[in-house]
Amino acid sequence: MKDSIFTKIIKGEIPSQKVYEDDKTIAFLTIEPLNPGHTLVVPKKQVEFLWDLDDATYAAVMQTSKKVANRIKEVLKPTYVGMEVVGVDVPHAHVHVIPFESARELHKNTDELIQPSQEELNDIANKLFFR
Amino acid sequence: MKDSIFTKIIKGEIPSQKVYEDDKTIAFLTIEPLNPGHTLVVPKKQVEFLWDLDDATYAAVMQTSKKVANRIKEVLKPTYVGMEVVGVDVPHAHVHVIPFESARELHKNTDELIQPSQEELNDIANKLFFR
Repeated sequence: MKDSIFTKIIKGEIPSQKVYEDDKTIAFLTIEPLNPGHTLVVPKKQVEFLWDLDDATYAAVMQTSKKVANRIKEVLKPTYVGMEVVGVDVPHAHVHVIPFESARELHKNTDELIQPSQEELNDIANKLFFR
Repeated sequence: MKDSIFTKIIKGEIPSQKVYEDDKTIAFLTIEPLNPGHTLVVPKKQVEFLWDLDDATYAAVMQTSKKVANRIKEVLKPTYVGMEVVGVDVPHAHVHVIPFESARELHKNTDELIQPSQEELNDIANKLFFR
């Protein structure tokens, strides 16, 4: 199986703005956020769809998603933190964790996505990173 | 704390199209689906936001969501099954599990929601129900 873009990030072959990492999962900022702080939680195991993960890895992805959601709440103080699993873009299971103020923001069109600079991404990742 | 509409469903005071139930969680069809088979997974413990659940109850909600997603895949055979946590409507934590064909369907406007009849809901719940 060819390495996905996420596996390349996990291997450090592509840089990312990492927020959290443990033995089974990694979380980093997406470069196309719906809102600043929009994070992807990814199993290190490369499986196409979330529903095809074994229960233990799936549970680890979900616990990391909860940690990241609560960290975003604490640090960025949005009104809400949402979660989305879509899975039609990158063929490597992932969970979106997204701070938002109104549900409309979760349903933006592609042309409404924010394009943050590297500096902005680094700044947010630095604030969110689990030390 | 006043019983939420979901707690009333859990107590059996309001009828629902139940798909799955165990000691910590319940899953039933929403009456306002994005697509037929759109299911809500709810902790029996009434907590406003998913992120405020204790880890064990949260893990149970997520494992039930995986069971329901795989059941929807198996029975209804959609191209994809997505998951959403928004949490701005009913003040009782819940996860949406939604069959879909294109990501656009996850981002319908309120006036595009399907309004299935009781018969249609009963028929789908009957197909999905874990026996």
